[in-house]
Formats: sequence, structure tokens, C-alpha cells
Amino acid sequence: MTYDDVFRRAVDQLHAEKRYRVFADLERRAGDFPRATWHAPEGARDVVVWCSNDYLGMGQHPAVIEALVETAEKVGAGAGGTRNIAGTNHPLVLLEQELADLHGKEAGLVFTSGYVSNEASISTLARLLPDCLILSDALNHASMIAGMRGSGCSRKIFAHSDLGDLERLLKEAGRERPKLIAFESVYSMDGDVAPIGKICDLAQEYGAMTYLDEVHAVGMYGPRGAGIAERDGVMHRVDVIEGTLAKAFGVIGGYVAASKPIVDAIRGYAPGFIFTTAMPPAIAAAARASVAHLKASQSERDRHQRQTLQTKIALSARGLPVMPSETHIVPVLVGCPEKAKAASDLLLAEHGIYIQPINYPTVPRGTERLRISPSPLHDDALIRELAVAMDAVWSRLDLPRRYEAIAAE
Amino acid sequence: MTYDDVFRRAVDQLHAEKRYRVFADLERRAGDFPRATWHAPEGARDVVVWCSNDYLGMGQHPAVIEALVETAEKVGAGAGGTRNIAGTNHPLVLLEQELADLHGKEAGLVFTSGYVSNEASISTLARLLPDCLILSDALNHASMIAGMRGSGCSRKIFAHSDLGDLERLLKEAGRERPKLIAFESVYSMDGDVAPIGKICDLAQEYGAMTYLDEVHAVGMYGPRGAGIAERDGVMHRVDVIEGTLAKAFGVIGGYVAASKPIVDAIRGYAPGFIFTTAMPPAIAAAARASVAHLKASQSERDRHQRQTLQTKIALSARGLPVMPSETHIVPVLVGCPEKAKAASDLLLAEHGIYIQPINYPTVPRGTERLRISPSPLHDDALIRELAVAMDAVWSRLDLPRRYEAIAAE
Repeated sequence: MTYDDVFRRAVDQLHAEKRYRVFADLERRAGDFPRATWHAPEGARDVVVWCSNDYLGMGQHPAVIEALVETAEKVGAGAGGTRNIAGTNHPLVLLEQELADLHGKEAGLVFTSGYVSNEASISTLARLLPDCLILSDALNHASMIAGMRGSGCSRKIFAHSDLGDLERLLKEAGRERPKLIAFESVYSMDGDVAPIGKICDLAQEYGAMTYLDEVHAVGMYGPRGAGIAERDGVMHRVDVIEGTLAKAFGVIGGYVAASKPIVDAIRGYAPGFIFTTAMPPAIAAAARASVAHLKASQSERDRHQRQTLQTKIALSARGLPVMPSETHIVPVLVGCPEKAKAASDLLLAEHGIYIQPINYPTVPRGTERLRISPSPLHDDALIRELAVAMDAVWSRLDLPRRYEAIAAE
Repeated sequence: MTYDDVFRRAVDQLHAEKRYRVFADLERRAGDFPRATWHAPEGARDVVVWCSNDYLGMGQHPAVIEALVETAEKVGAGAGGTRNIAGTNHPLVLLEQELADLHGKEAGLVFTSGYVSNEASISTLARLLPDCLILSDALNHASMIAGMRGSGCSRKIFAHSDLGDLERLLKEAGRERPKLIAFESVYSMDGDVAPIGKICDLAQEYGAMTYLDEVHAVGMYGPRGAGIAERDGVMHRVDVIEGTLAKAFGVIGGYVAASKPIVDAIRGYAPGFIFTTAMPPAIAAAARASVAHLKASQSERDRHQRQTLQTKIALSARGLPVMPSETHIVPVLVGCPEKAKAASDLLLAEHGIYIQPINYPTVPRGTERLRISPSPLHDDALIRELAVAMDAVWSRLDLPRRYEAIAAE
């Protein structure tokens, strides 16, 4: 057997489990969000995208594009180096200041992606704390898990958002041992929200440090768009806030905001930060324009919530199994990878609606779903069309209708 | 002791070892490479950058900036999703085809950075090979090491570019056991080149797979800029070629080019590829423009080699300790972190020349250096000024002159 044969078998395994992914080749059009051109194998077609993580459509906001274009014309494309060697650029320095201010922290630090910010920060912080125990929410994102593994520290998992289970582990570890509680504010697959304040209470009581991933909340919650911790008035109690410049901010990159010693330690010790080319100045400028806009403007957030609610109502009214969600995430349960894919394929082929099926390992097997992310730019007419189309597909494929009935199986 | 105290101590440790890094806040100017504005604490100043990894100045090439600007104006800033969920964009698909073609492989796969491409690809490939043994060159980059660690596989290190040592380990492992040889083509701190063809001979003889990092060579070597493996006529013998879209291509991002089964396996199994927002379309378009330009144009490569040689000659003529280097990397040995920093500070303060000192952990302690990267745009007058300035600084700080004498210590 050749090496290629081994990898071919691994890929066959993905096919066998119905989780081989075919990427839809999309071309968005600035000013026409959420519409895009889909470069299908048979030719180009118009579609409406209902599963983008550009949650507020900021990736096409004129101020964001203008900052990107102006900076590229003025200074060029790449940064020209790692952060330490010729790559720290002025727009990036200003972006880090903007992010520190957004979260009310002493310092901000930008990474090439949200994935890298979690991986690099968690692994570095935990490694620097002697005998650190990491307490991790059961549904934490792959990038946080990568960081924990990379730290080499011991790790215990508490049941998802379960304060009792967390307290049990904190008690077991004792006050003296350094402990890092790692969790998210909005869990993106179910759309539920963590009890941040209560987790901070426990952290304080048992002397733990808190690391909060707000990637699905920054830009979208809180009066200045700093996230759920801001909305809940507990931002100052969280030690490290991690966020993304993709998603609601519409660009790319990740960051942490924290005290100066914490940021300085990550900056000085994390290989994933040190040994990589810095963010391009034009990208930094675009991200900063987006953060600054959403700090001052509430209208995108209000309309985002409104259109999300409209979507949930429209789908539920037709008996579609909308999973309970407190946030802007609208998951619709299918419960089978093949049927989820079939539903997605039909929506695209017959209705020009693009919603990627979410299968294992992104969600547990048996909870395969279509996950819908309405934006402020999905208007009421688009919502109506979505509901009609999904209703038709559900009937055509004879998919289960009531969430409770499926969930109880 | 608070958590902040622990991190403060860790940072104090960096200060004590003279390796705390202060990032120079730079603002480049399109069309004015290698000049930039340095936002110093005392105010803005003009400097000449001599340590950028934008090796050919392509980050400011009009075709690259134009592709970036045009695409941003047409489609917006971010990709709007992960590769699987709404983020695969048309310019990115075209970029991957361009990269596959560049390296003569069946497929290309783009990552958010070169660091991530190594981390994600090596860890995934090795994990998929049963009982894989990784054979790693002693001087491999931090990102490759991160990938090896992440794989959980056993790893043996062979002496840097030492064919005898590699063969000993291959023999020891036996033909049957899956083996992955991981190495670089150009080692960026010393500028030496790996014997790629001979490593491929050994790989063939003992049934090993080869993974080659060409990040310091793509764009710069080979008739189409595919790297050292292309230059040496052995590109078809290497299983996986990894490269960067930063450095010579002047933008950001990393990639691998390999057979379809290999790329498909990484695509389907690597968390660092799956769970992260895709490269922005404007960045993909800029990178593609750069790759396409350097595929067809030899003049940048020729002039790069010429100016590098001129620099080496000019510095050596003044008795500066230029370390032996077969490539475009011009390391000048100092051998002490404080003196390397002092030399860099003086060059900047008194001569407007920016060369970051390279200290541990990027290079071994005792081999601290100034590492100079001439580009095609560093003209003969700039080279002369550099030599005069360094000569003055070397005298002023009484730094050792002859490389051989220092190296022998």
C-alpha cells in the first residue's frame, strides 16, 4: 500500500460517513448582500446565502471596504514581516488599541485568525502557570481544545454551562492550585449563552482565572458591541476576552484583550504569535473601521435581532423544527447527515438558497442540522421565501417537523 | 501572588535574558520600498528597512495592489465563512489551482498562514499514517515542530542536513514502518540549502514520505519561482511542498501542494483548516496576481541575487562578520543579545537603518545576529550606505570583525 492509498482510504471513510465536504465556490457582490454568485459545476447561478458568519454584513460595509482599499493603495498588500521583524504596521497598532478600548482592558493583541488566537493564548497562559489545571466547557470550540492540548496541562471538562459541575471541579482542585476556566459566551451550534457572571463568581470564590471566547458575540451584543460580557455588565470581571475580526466585524483575524502582563506574556512566549507574518495593514485598517463603526452604531444590532426573531417565527409557524436558541443562531434539526445534505442540496438546486448542512464532527452525530444565520440585510421578503422553500423541502423529503419529538428520540 | 504577578514574572524573565521585544511601529509607503515611516515614541521618522521578508518587494507591486483593490471593491472585505460554510470564494479557488500548477502537483490547499499550513498539515498527515515516525531536521521551523507535536507521533531529529544521520534513522526504523521526513529547502537564519534530491533518494530507498517547507524559496528560486526543488529539478519527487503567500509573494497566507489524496485528507481532517474563516477574496486575488507575475517574470529573481551578492561583498570588504550563506539571507554575527540590540538601536537612531536583532529562541544563544534581507529594490547606493553605517557601528561598539574568529570561540 502506498502513502497515497492510506490517505485515499481516510478520505473514503469520510465518504462512508457521509461527511465528505464539497465546498460551494461563491462569489459575493459588494452592496448586494446576502446575494452571491455560485460557481456551480454546471455554470454560474444566483443564490441567497443564509449561512454566512458575516453576521451583520459588515464585510461589505462601505466604510470597511474604503479603509481596506485606501490603506492598500497607500502602503501595499502584505505586512512585510513577523511582528518582531519589520511586520508591525501602524494600522495594526491602532487596531490593537481600539480592541483594548472596546473591551475596557489594558491591552489588545491581534493574531492571524481566531483559531490561532485561542490556540496560542490558551496554550501559552496555561503553560506559564505552574501545575495549571484547565477547566473546559464540554462544548468548547476546536481551537480552544487545540490550545489546551498544546499547553500540556491537565484538563477537566465540565458539563456544558453547568455551574454545579464546574464548582465540583473547582472545589476538588483546591484554592491554591492555578486554574484556568475556558468557556464561550455564545455557543455557535446551538445558540445558547453562558452564565458569565456566575462563572466569574465561582472563579473569584475558588481563585481561578477566566478565559472567555466571544467570537460569536463581538459586534452583536452589548451597547458598544463588545459582546455578551458587556451586555451583562461583567466584562471587567473576565480576565481574558478573545474575539474575532471575521464574523460580525466582517474581515479576518483574531485577538485577545486583557491586562498588560497577560498580553505581554502571550506576545513574548506564544510560537503561534511570534513565528508568523503579521496581519496586512489594509486588513487591520478594515477591521478597525468595522469595530469603530459598530462601537457607535446600534442600528445593525437592533435589526439583526429583529430579523432573527422574524426568521424563527416564520419557520416555526410552518412547523419546521427550529431548535431553541437565545441568540442570532437559528439551527433547524434534521438528525441525519444524508438527509441534512439532501435538504441543503434541494434548497440550492430548486430554490437558490444556500445553507450548508452541519455534520459531525462540528456537531454530535444524530444532531445534524441546517444552521441559519439571518443578518440585518435579510429582509422580510427573503425570510418569507426561505420559510416557503424549507417547508417545501421538508415535505418533499418527508423530514420530521416538531423539534420536541425529534429531540426526545 | 496573583495571576498577573505570575505573568509579570515571566515577562521579567524575558527582560533579564535581554530578549524582551519592542516592536517597531512601521508604516510602509507603496512605491517607495524599502523606505518606510517609523512611528517612534519621539515622533515619526524616515527609515530604510533592511530586514523585511517581503523579499522581492512584491507587496507593493502595482499588479498585486490592483488585484487586491479591485476585488475588495467588487466583493467586499471578508470571506464570510469557513471553507465549508459559505467561505470558499472564487478567487481562493483560482489561487489554489494556480499553486497546484506552480508546483506541478494535482492539488493546492490554502491556509490562513504559513504557520498554520505546517501545523495543520504535518499533524494531520502523520496522525493518519499508522505508527508514523517523523524524521525532522534539527533546524526545522517552530511551525513544523508544532505540527509534529500536535500529531502525537514519535519523532526523531536528524542532525541538520546530515544525510548520514538521516539514513541511520531510516535504517533503524525499517522499510515497513510509515515515515515522514520533514525539512526545509532554505533555512532562514543561516541561509543554507538542503540537499533535496539526496533526501528524496533516501526517502525512496527506505520508503519514506517527504514534506518540504519552501517558504523562504518560493517566488525566488527556480525558473517559474516554485522554489529550490524546482531549481534542482526534483520537485516531482517531493510528496508535499509547503509554501507561503507572504515573504516573496508579498501578501499573507500559507499553502501546500501535493497529490489529490493528500490534499483531500488534510482538507477533511485538519482542525486548523476546517474551523477557521477562509482567506478574504481580495487577499487571495492579490496573492494569485503575485504568483502569476513571478511565474512569468525572471527579472526580480535575477536582480535579487545580484543585490544580495553586492551586499555580501560590500559588508565583507569592510571586515564585517558575514556568515556563510548560499542564498539571499545575509546574516551578520554578533554573538550576544545585548550587543545585537545595541547595534540595531544605533543603526536606527543614527543612520535611519532598520535591522531587527535576531535573538534566542529564534536562533541559538551565542549566535545572536543582524539578519539582512536585500531586495531587488535595495539599489547600489543603499548598499553602500548600509556598509558604511554598519562599519561605523561595529567600530563604535567594538564588535568582533572576522566571522571565522567568532565562530571558533
